[in-house]
Amino acid sequence: MTETMTDLNARTSELDRGHVFHSWSAQGSLSLLPIAGGRGTEVWDHAGKTYLDFSSQLVNVNIGHQHPAVVQAIQEQAATLATIGPATANLTRGVAAQRIAARAPEGFDKVFFTNGGADANENAIRMARLHTGRDKVLSTYRSYHGNTGGAIVATGDWRRMPNEYARGHVHFFGPYLYRSEFWATSPEEECERALHHLRRVIEAEGPDTVAAILLESIPGTAGIMIPPPGYLSGVREIADRFGIVLVLDEVMAGFGRAGEWFAFDAHDVTPDLITFAKGVNSGYVPVGGVIINDAIARTFDERVFPGGLTYSGHPLAAASIVASIDAMESEGIVAHAKEIGADVIGPGLAELADKHPVIGEVRGTGVFWALELVADRTTREPLSAALMGKAKAELVGRGVLPFTADNRIHVVPPCVVTADEVAQAMTAYDEVLTILDRSVVE
Amino acid sequence: MTETMTDLNARTSELDRGHVFHSWSAQGSLSLLPIAGGRGTEVWDHAGKTYLDFSSQLVNVNIGHQHPAVVQAIQEQAATLATIGPATANLTRGVAAQRIAARAPEGFDKVFFTNGGADANENAIRMARLHTGRDKVLSTYRSYHGNTGGAIVATGDWRRMPNEYARGHVHFFGPYLYRSEFWATSPEEECERALHHLRRVIEAEGPDTVAAILLESIPGTAGIMIPPPGYLSGVREIADRFGIVLVLDEVMAGFGRAGEWFAFDAHDVTPDLITFAKGVNSGYVPVGGVIINDAIARTFDERVFPGGLTYSGHPLAAASIVASIDAMESEGIVAHAKEIGADVIGPGLAELADKHPVIGEVRGTGVFWALELVADRTTREPLSAALMGKAKAELVGRGVLPFTADNRIHVVPPCVVTADEVAQAMTAYDEVLTILDRSVVE
Repeated sequence: MTETMTDLNARTSELDRGHVFHSWSAQGSLSLLPIAGGRGTEVWDHAGKTYLDFSSQLVNVNIGHQHPAVVQAIQEQAATLATIGPATANLTRGVAAQRIAARAPEGFDKVFFTNGGADANENAIRMARLHTGRDKVLSTYRSYHGNTGGAIVATGDWRRMPNEYARGHVHFFGPYLYRSEFWATSPEEECERALHHLRRVIEAEGPDTVAAILLESIPGTAGIMIPPPGYLSGVREIADRFGIVLVLDEVMAGFGRAGEWFAFDAHDVTPDLITFAKGVNSGYVPVGGVIINDAIARTFDERVFPGGLTYSGHPLAAASIVASIDAMESEGIVAHAKEIGADVIGPGLAELADKHPVIGEVRGTGVFWALELVADRTTREPLSAALMGKAKAELVGRGVLPFTADNRIHVVPPCVVTADEVAQAMTAYDEVLTILDRSVVE
Repeated sequence: MTETMTDLNARTSELDRGHVFHSWSAQGSLSLLPIAGGRGTEVWDHAGKTYLDFSSQLVNVNIGHQHPAVVQAIQEQAATLATIGPATANLTRGVAAQRIAARAPEGFDKVFFTNGGADANENAIRMARLHTGRDKVLSTYRSYHGNTGGAIVATGDWRRMPNEYARGHVHFFGPYLYRSEFWATSPEEECERALHHLRRVIEAEGPDTVAAILLESIPGTAGIMIPPPGYLSGVREIADRFGIVLVLDEVMAGFGRAGEWFAFDAHDVTPDLITFAKGVNSGYVPVGGVIINDAIARTFDERVFPGGLTYSGHPLAAASIVASIDAMESEGIVAHAKEIGADVIGPGLAELADKHPVIGEVRGTGVFWALELVADRTTREPLSAALMGKAKAELVGRGVLPFTADNRIHVVPPCVVTADEVAQAMTAYDEVLTILDRSVVE
């Protein structure tokens, strides 16, 4: 039996190498873990080897793997009506929209559903452009907003350059004290200077040309930089002064990841548009969307909204959203994420930072943490790609699936992670960081 | 009980109007049919009122509503592993890719999965640009390729204009004898002149600047214009002469719709990239993708492919693809679509055209037909939007869900439609066309 299961791992790898073209990769030398099943924070292969998923895959499985209520909702909806076009009214879709709008601030009543985060941002940009009659979209260099033609050009990081086939996008620097672009030495100074910089970019671009400021409430893959107190409300003030739409991208940070329903709930700010995906249903069915404030929604009461997609408001996705939000609510999953972040993950990582010179900075909230690894604590030179590769392999070897980006390990388990599971992962991190310490200049 | 069910219809409509923002619409005056369930060609509301779905929703439910094998596959995969990130190997995903590649011509081994047709085309464009080192993408004015930033700009129809924020896209005219752009009077002449026109556009743009020609094998929403014999192979020759990648968009035309696995199978042509969505799993789970020929796949063996998405190769989508392709194969669904088109739908529509002066042209194949409606058969002036609205309402009133676009009714039932269901729909079309005839100049 074990042999058969090992064979299934081999067959999985063979089919994968033969037929599957993978995201963000050179295809020639890929060798990926076969994953056959999971539950909560664990996943396993066909031979029963288990891993602790401290990546939540692409930071999307907020409710954990295979939550029974969400699985059941998908199964029941599949039995009733798996798909229906967007130009119909559908009860499950309506309930899902209502559930989502109920989590948003007052004055957000309508939801436009997409297939994921990229087209959520695409459509938020479209709404902002048509609402304002302006063209440009401002976003930060350290950002990720998705990988379609509009969204990838809004993106700040390297994934933009090979895809830069659009105009009307301007990038600026956001707050990031550890690597300040503004010669700041305190959170207050970083905040004030980052806001000054944003205002100057808008003035220099021409305020009347700027449709939207598009920001991840907490930049995610770019490094989990919690905005300093006052930054987001300062951006709100600037947007208001110049009549600019503020879009907060909650694709990765929302629905429990930051220990809140929306990461911006911990900041004193209300955006005009909110984009979401990932945590809304933990990616059990592909879905994303835009939550629209009433003023922007009204723009399209008499005017045709020139956007749409075949699977907008897909019933299978809608059913999984309803079940996921209800389970997160009734099981206190968002509160749990906040507590375990404050009481267990944060203190645990701080302890690691005290012990390991390879850690330059620890930052985060909820189940959304970054360990920034450096070759030299004084110069803050990022740890090399080769050593990051080693870190990743060593963690997988210890049964922990990590999320790594540039010189960082992101500690991003499902919201349902237990203190015990965190302790297991901490042991693995501790061992691997000890190996990395050897190469660090102290 | 009927009252409760009627209440559910009302509740569905209320939630829809309160919270759901819809595609391609002014939101203020929307009133959409509540749909609660379906089977095969039928759908119904909460009160049990049934409709014959001659739209296949957005021309995607090729296998019919609620095919039991596909529903079961979704349920089983949901119970096993609903979601897993793209940077893993997954058996169901590998089998789905293998099934799809097996339907494609020799030399197509790899599949890149996306969430739908738009990002399928986005990624095909990206591959073509990186493979050739060129920028421009040529597509036709009468086309639809999706609604993201890159895809919408490749799109030819009106949906492009409010979204035109990218460069590097050039549009040309495809063959369409009924409204020839080339003063042609026969299919042969239309074909020859359309190819000449395409070659001239490429020469005038600069052949070394053109990365890709992106074409729907049969333009779908744009009007179901079957390419004249020799056109697609002529485009292939031109692409080869200038080193241009030929992308055939099979999102709507593929997987049975045109009575073939791929619509281009009926033409003497092999593309370089094939994009798909809709019919591959009838949209039961949102999915799309690119089938990549080996030469282009090899470009990314050592070089990172700079594209990706969280839900690429989603296991729930993969399971529905495997079940859908297997059921289409074992139940002879593609062959049925071809036969019912040739034996029942085509002759039935030809009869209607003989009888109704409002019909300017009938064209199509498989379960993919257009009735082009005109105010005047001599000038071919399109029927007005007001009368098209009337036609739609009259058909819905007769229990037939139609697909309309511009001045056309597209007759696009699921591939599993029966002769009996076609006869029912023909009766409704006949009655409604009789009403429309009154306004026609003969």
